[in-house]
Amino acid sequence: MTQNIYDDGMFFAEYSRLRRSVEGLDGAPEWPALRALLPELHGRRVLDLGCGFGWFCRWARQQGAARVLGIDVSERMLAQARATTQDPAIAYTRADMEALELPAGSFDLAFSSLALHYVQDLDRLVREVHGSLAPGGSLVFSVEHPVFTAPAKPGWSRGADGRATWPIDSYLDQGPRSTVWLTKGVIKHHRTVAAYLNTLIKCGFAIAQVEEWGPTEEQVQSQPALAAERQRPPFLLVGAKRL
Amino acid sequence: MTQNIYDDGMFFAEYSRLRRSVEGLDGAPEWPALRALLPELHGRRVLDLGCGFGWFCRWARQQGAARVLGIDVSERMLAQARATTQDPAIAYTRADMEALELPAGSFDLAFSSLALHYVQDLDRLVREVHGSLAPGGSLVFSVEHPVFTAPAKPGWSRGADGRATWPIDSYLDQGPRSTVWLTKGVIKHHRTVAAYLNTLIKCGFAIAQVEEWGPTEEQVQSQPALAAERQRPPFLLVGAKRL
Repeated sequence: MTQNIYDDGMFFAEYSRLRRSVEGLDGAPEWPALRALLPELHGRRVLDLGCGFGWFCRWARQQGAARVLGIDVSERMLAQARATTQDPAIAYTRADMEALELPAGSFDLAFSSLALHYVQDLDRLVREVHGSLAPGGSLVFSVEHPVFTAPAKPGWSRGADGRATWPIDSYLDQGPRSTVWLTKGVIKHHRTVAAYLNTLIKCGFAIAQVEEWGPTEEQVQSQPALAAERQRPPFLLVGAKRL
Repeated sequence: MTQNIYDDGMFFAEYSRLRRSVEGLDGAPEWPALRALLPELHGRRVLDLGCGFGWFCRWARQQGAARVLGIDVSERMLAQARATTQDPAIAYTRADMEALELPAGSFDLAFSSLALHYVQDLDRLVREVHGSLAPGGSLVFSVEHPVFTAPAKPGWSRGADGRATWPIDSYLDQGPRSTVWLTKGVIKHHRTVAAYLNTLIKCGFAIAQVEEWGPTEEQVQSQPALAAERQRPPFLLVGAKRL
């Protein structure tokens, strides 16, 4: 089973204070880039893998999605999602992405924001998602970028000229990483960029667009804390089409 | 015009001593992985962009390719390629990849080994290559990996635990990098993994496979100097199909 760190009380309290938790999609600096990968949603059936507080589910309905299913492993997040949703076309279901089973051909878009790096068996999940999409359907997701998840001891260093550098090691050694993120012992599964893409291709997706997200100059101006993120991308964004 | 560093006397002398120059394809540790991306060559028309000494051109003919055109900007390399080739079905032509023009639909495979990172206008070249391939044709290439080309001052560091780390910066700032490789002032054009892939997709290729190459355990055993390359991939390998 995927580690359910979001139901850890201390983690949940910290996570709930993040800007993206309080402000929703517009509080996530990568959202404009991720949104740009999405297909037209009007009348479409949408699946959100790792829906958290349900921000994307509600936004998809505002865009005219016919119905939305949000999946998450965290009871606490689903409770808050349900408490803040009044829309019979949105359903939230508790499920573990390692064992998720989905009805065939029942969605037009599978979406996932910063959740798939928690999944150990990505092949299995992508096959399941492929089967759940109608032909021509889309898979759009973001994950922590592999250069971000690779290091045994991730963190910024300073180069000789004072510039922030991000030392990489262990990039080709795929597998779990125990990291400190809001709390200790958060397990993320490092895989390479190639592994993400080849898994999609092998399961029957065509890669439509790949983005290695970093903040724009305007975002750095308004949020100077983001500046270092231009030295190495924190997020990998992928748009793919079911063949 | 692409910098023609290979016609610099000192660079050429150093390059000529590299294992891959002396031993050919089998002297390049990434060759088995690159070869695995190639289609069946029997009866096919092959283009080699940055053919150097012509090792791949001659190998392609051994695999039964109908004819092979090797393109390079270096007079010295082409002279050596011609001097070591006795095969009327192989032609070598001097051309600058920034301005290359190719006849439409005249190849089944476009191949390039460690040359496209010298090209400034990749969009133009990929459009040209796309037009030169028959429908269903393949583009297979290797380049220096973007995590390798990104840093302003590339080089290994030692982590606190003595482990080799590769500090990254400037990843999202695409453009030329003046580096020391065999000699000073070698100009390579850094672009992101996403930029390589999106350029191919935009020009009408489907991504078939992506590899971030590092040495196998067996290769590290027989060539211990390769060990650090597993910390971050030195090469990006891509197989794509013309739609």
